[in-house]
Amino acid sequence: MLPLQIQPGSRIPLYAQLRDQLRALVRIGHLVPGDRIPPSRELAARLGVHRTTVANAYADLEAEGLIRGHVGRGTFICGQPNGHLSERPAAAPLKPGPVRWDGLFAEERAEETLDRLLPTPSRKTISFTVACPPETLFPLEEFRRCCNAVLRHHGREILQLGSTDGYPPLREVLTAWLRRDGIVGPHDHVLITNGCQQGFDLLARVFLRSGDTVLLENPTYPGLLATFAGRHIRAIGAPVRAEAGVDPDALAFALERNRVKLIVLMPDFQNPTGTTLSLADRRRVLEIAERYRVPVVEDHIYARLRVRGQPIPSLKALDRAGLAIQLDSFSKLAFPGLRVGWCVAPAPVAERLRLAKQAADLHTGQLAQAAAAEFIRRGLLDRHLERMRKVYRRRMEATEAALERYMPEEVRWSSPEGGMCVWATLPAGLDAVELLVRARERGVVFAPGRLFYLENAQPNTLRLGFAELSERRIARGVRILGDLVREQWKRSRVRRVAQGNGVSAAVTLV
Amino acid sequence: MLPLQIQPGSRIPLYAQLRDQLRALVRIGHLVPGDRIPPSRELAARLGVHRTTVANAYADLEAEGLIRGHVGRGTFICGQPNGHLSERPAAAPLKPGPVRWDGLFAEERAEETLDRLLPTPSRKTISFTVACPPETLFPLEEFRRCCNAVLRHHGREILQLGSTDGYPPLREVLTAWLRRDGIVGPHDHVLITNGCQQGFDLLARVFLRSGDTVLLENPTYPGLLATFAGRHIRAIGAPVRAEAGVDPDALAFALERNRVKLIVLMPDFQNPTGTTLSLADRRRVLEIAERYRVPVVEDHIYARLRVRGQPIPSLKALDRAGLAIQLDSFSKLAFPGLRVGWCVAPAPVAERLRLAKQAADLHTGQLAQAAAAEFIRRGLLDRHLERMRKVYRRRMEATEAALERYMPEEVRWSSPEGGMCVWATLPAGLDAVELLVRARERGVVFAPGRLFYLENAQPNTLRLGFAELSERRIARGVRILGDLVREQWKRSRVRRVAQGNGVSAAVTLV
Repeated sequence: MLPLQIQPGSRIPLYAQLRDQLRALVRIGHLVPGDRIPPSRELAARLGVHRTTVANAYADLEAEGLIRGHVGRGTFICGQPNGHLSERPAAAPLKPGPVRWDGLFAEERAEETLDRLLPTPSRKTISFTVACPPETLFPLEEFRRCCNAVLRHHGREILQLGSTDGYPPLREVLTAWLRRDGIVGPHDHVLITNGCQQGFDLLARVFLRSGDTVLLENPTYPGLLATFAGRHIRAIGAPVRAEAGVDPDALAFALERNRVKLIVLMPDFQNPTGTTLSLADRRRVLEIAERYRVPVVEDHIYARLRVRGQPIPSLKALDRAGLAIQLDSFSKLAFPGLRVGWCVAPAPVAERLRLAKQAADLHTGQLAQAAAAEFIRRGLLDRHLERMRKVYRRRMEATEAALERYMPEEVRWSSPEGGMCVWATLPAGLDAVELLVRARERGVVFAPGRLFYLENAQPNTLRLGFAELSERRIARGVRILGDLVREQWKRSRVRRVAQGNGVSAAVTLV
Repeated sequence: MLPLQIQPGSRIPLYAQLRDQLRALVRIGHLVPGDRIPPSRELAARLGVHRTTVANAYADLEAEGLIRGHVGRGTFICGQPNGHLSERPAAAPLKPGPVRWDGLFAEERAEETLDRLLPTPSRKTISFTVACPPETLFPLEEFRRCCNAVLRHHGREILQLGSTDGYPPLREVLTAWLRRDGIVGPHDHVLITNGCQQGFDLLARVFLRSGDTVLLENPTYPGLLATFAGRHIRAIGAPVRAEAGVDPDALAFALERNRVKLIVLMPDFQNPTGTTLSLADRRRVLEIAERYRVPVVEDHIYARLRVRGQPIPSLKALDRAGLAIQLDSFSKLAFPGLRVGWCVAPAPVAERLRLAKQAADLHTGQLAQAAAAEFIRRGLLDRHLERMRKVYRRRMEATEAALERYMPEEVRWSSPEGGMCVWATLPAGLDAVELLVRARERGVVFAPGRLFYLENAQPNTLRLGFAELSERRIARGVRILGDLVREQWKRSRVRRVAQGNGVSAAVTLV
């Protein structure tokens, strides 16, 4: 599926929107030479536009030498006329022998993943792409001492095969730590996972079969979409409201009309929009889930990174029906490379997850678990978090100040109370992928919003992850983006005038 | 599915075999109170015996108070008359609230897993159950120094989010290490996994859909069966020949008659039988795989633990068609608790596995990877392996000597050239689960053979893992087992005489 989204309300002609988006997909490497693009009739039906609109877009792209039609075979991407983006790493060399692997895989095509769409930036690039803690502030020396201590005192146990539930000292110290926030109830168990991503994967194994439906926020974390895409799970989305989080009415509506097996939500500093669900809405969400008897998974990964406003209890802490399951991880708190996360779930669910985990990889590596346990036990995690919240507050404020200062007034952005990202919306008709193409040339990258949508992608949105950047680099990066948005905005107005006739011509051709 | 296996050739009556096996399944906790057992007609059809045989077995068990029939509902396990095995841990407490989780899971019943069938032995128990390196010989101090070095020099990189492929220095040093044995060819890539178990899981994601068929050795590693069971994959088995490994003719026959999507084999010191495939048979297996164009996965996890005889090149090293994929891990070599393994595969396969890994858990924890890389780089792995091979040779020889000395002459066992286990076969009609029940009372445990079969389970087989045990404890454990086998063998002959009439009576009842 191509991530294309036509905005009928825009003043940019439909065919030009489509042409520009396809061109951008080639530039960013989502489409590569040899890829087949859909026949115009099919794409038109999917986008709900007239076939001529698609035909006109294709005609322009063919004239540019970007696509070529082959009689009886279809239309293919045939080159990248603008060489400046060709640094995408070459595909791994195929064995020239007789094995045709494509016919041997379970799926004909692999799912696209985020890292294919987002080439690694160079050191000098100002990258707003990721949402990761800054490595320069890792509590390295303290962590190394924790490693040493646990290897000295419990080395044999740590290096021997362990329990699928998790390394017992980590489960103990985590359970106590989580009890402070009312997250682990008397009927809950804690299961250690390889980060939140494995939590999603195990939940999918336990709750969803091929063809089942899962209800997510739209937009949401792309790794979550990858979890379900590989399993032929139908993901439907409830829209996230500006500044207010997922819409409970939309949730109820979706549950009424679909046999949903699992709901996944991020009530605090939602990724990518940064929104937070109010206490009243959290209660409503839980009531709705109880009414339809659907388990609610709460992705709690950013919740401890609140930089302003009042904390709100988590869904798991508020849950009375026993339907909430919470996923969390050290990845946003301190050390993503360890890959240690956890899941808090009612005992029967935890037992099923444990069995799924055992089949998946026996257990999570114990050295990382033991070191993390020692890090909590010594009070270092609390101290580190306190420090990082201050850092993130300064960076969040720097991002907002820079947006205020450098963006044209038509640009809107979210004001998150925590987390690592700000979500920005360009004027309708502008395309964040096009912006990214130009921004990369100027040494700035970010995550275009369309990567986060499961449906109704808004091509004029983008996510700015600020956590890894100094205030100085944030300001410089946003200034460059602001300049480019202004240019793009001006050009699009020029194009609107110039292409007005083109559209009419196309329409009269019908 | 109950792991029942009736041996028509045995002198023990069929109904008594069935009764004793069901009783043993209750004792070992495979069947628990409340479990429903199949209607006699259904079970009879499945086992290929007369319905009266099953009815007679059930009648005896009902008289013992072990099962009870409920009109219209079926027959259920209702208690454990022999309390001595009730130390199986109680099920996790169910939330008393209104959520009935069983109706919300994707599968009604969870798969049984090995650890539910094998209760953890106490410290004093002589355990032949597992196949793990002995923790008393872990290279702990050296490993701790490696950890320190990598955290000091590359701490930031290690604790930051990493590459799905694996930590680059580990991939490099591993690739060089594997090239020595001709395992990594010019078109192969190395992907780091969380041990072999995740390798199986990723291969299942990439190659198999629900309903597909996989061809395994029978018997095989139970964790491999768990991989496929959770996905509704049909696993068929090619028998493993005594002292000779999987039968290539059976492999060819199975491929001829089934649309097999993947083959998984363990050519060196096969788990559980300890057999090794000859060079000629390895070549035949590769020819057959090429003829049917089916990828062959080679589980190489024990291959470096050869204690005698000449090394034979791996399937991956011999493969010319480019269809072989090799899984391996540090788990049997040095530190199972780290959960670091790898997969060597042709580039297009490695790319698909990488995408599956990314959806599964982003990447394997980097601290463990970095420490393992340093451990290889310093030459410590080679040195440790050399030392461990000597230890295992002594323990293997001690096991064989003890079996020779203490077992009745009707018992047979394998003579592996490496690995961590010896596979023993009791006289037909004896049941290893019954032996285990009695052996536990005497402080000795092992893995009953039926856990390893995917079909045609031989209840008179068992696996003796010797790697963790000193020569003294090996001798003591085998002596106890020998005594018990003698007793069981004597009792079974008494029973044969006493029950001869019972069978005739049962038959005349028809």
